[in-house]
Amino acid sequence: MHIAFLLFPGITQLDLTGPAQFLSRLPGAKIDLVWDSLDPVPTDAGFSILPTATFADVPRADVLCVPGGMGVAQVIDHAPALDWVRQVGSEATWVTSVCTGALVLGAAGLLRGYKATTHWAWHDLLALFGAEPVQARTVIDRNRATGGGVTAGIDFALTLMAAIAGEDHAKAVQLALEYDPAPPFDTGTPAKAGPALVAVYQARANKLAPHRRDELIASAARLGFTA
Amino acid sequence: MHIAFLLFPGITQLDLTGPAQFLSRLPGAKIDLVWDSLDPVPTDAGFSILPTATFADVPRADVLCVPGGMGVAQVIDHAPALDWVRQVGSEATWVTSVCTGALVLGAAGLLRGYKATTHWAWHDLLALFGAEPVQARTVIDRNRATGGGVTAGIDFALTLMAAIAGEDHAKAVQLALEYDPAPPFDTGTPAKAGPALVAVYQARANKLAPHRRDELIASAARLGFTA
Repeated sequence: MHIAFLLFPGITQLDLTGPAQFLSRLPGAKIDLVWDSLDPVPTDAGFSILPTATFADVPRADVLCVPGGMGVAQVIDHAPALDWVRQVGSEATWVTSVCTGALVLGAAGLLRGYKATTHWAWHDLLALFGAEPVQARTVIDRNRATGGGVTAGIDFALTLMAAIAGEDHAKAVQLALEYDPAPPFDTGTPAKAGPALVAVYQARANKLAPHRRDELIASAARLGFTA
Repeated sequence: MHIAFLLFPGITQLDLTGPAQFLSRLPGAKIDLVWDSLDPVPTDAGFSILPTATFADVPRADVLCVPGGMGVAQVIDHAPALDWVRQVGSEATWVTSVCTGALVLGAAGLLRGYKATTHWAWHDLLALFGAEPVQARTVIDRNRATGGGVTAGIDFALTLMAAIAGEDHAKAVQLALEYDPAPPFDTGTPAKAGPALVAVYQARANKLAPHRRDELIASAARLGFTA
């Protein structure tokens, strides 16, 4: 069971490390983190993760998983990365993403005609790539499995694990990783958080990367996707 | 706001990467991952994380956080690591752990007389180190904040973030990271999972490290902690 994650600069590291923790407990799991080179890759959280393999090392995998993060626009514009996602995704048993990684799958042409989800703030962009946006924490449509924003990757991974190895296995891993969530607050979606907290999010996103949405739309257009 | 995580071989990487994702969003956050050297540190999930600093580089921090994992017994037996935890913990504003990292805090003498929690399967060992075990996902007693097993680190981090930066800030980060958990199953604690799944966990733990509990008790005794 070979699971290949795309690792890239500016990744939201929990998009990868959450699912990787769960999926590493699949029977016979081999996890690869794949990028251009084996040099350390800086994440959004102030530390670096080491790739285990380069694109050339991993021409195929049972599960492809593309995480998201601030670096997604650069990934879409980086032909070796997008070519690798397209190639591995064309043959993988499961083609998956977490958070804005769905936009990379979309840019690689892998979500045309598929239901999918992504981080709530970027949901509308799924349609640009021919996907059908669904508001859900995990969406499975045939062999495409997509998770919502960041922490949704854990619910996504448990759901995918059950589909691959059965519910009993997934339930045992849930116990081992003590996944009995009890958030101290209930503000994990825009509807629950309310407009004031949504405005805080938008202000921060605009400050960090004011043109990110326009850049993504421009990149999509260059690849032939138009609204 | 300087947050220092202990990083070590055999760490359960989500114990660190979950809280680090949240705590990196504290105002002015600087995250350090600290170990003996700057060489890559292998985690339990098949990939390596790079330390950002060595013990000598980080003599103090505002928040000390010790994650858990299979390597915890070796950390307790490794004097430079335990000395660093004791030193930084003696002056930190917050002394914290996730999962079996609590046993390292305990071995460093930092939980004597404090309420604390850890992974459900190791809960009873807290008392060895003079702590008062509490069955909860997050336990805060004065400046000690401890989280339960693995994924509890996320609830722990949100709770700690609210204590440090206020509830409004924590709620905004919860929205940004879309933390609205919806596990597909409800087997995250021994009581909810039932005896058959608990037996699966124990069998795997016994297979991976049959003498781990005895080793931890022996290490505790060497440090002067006796039941």
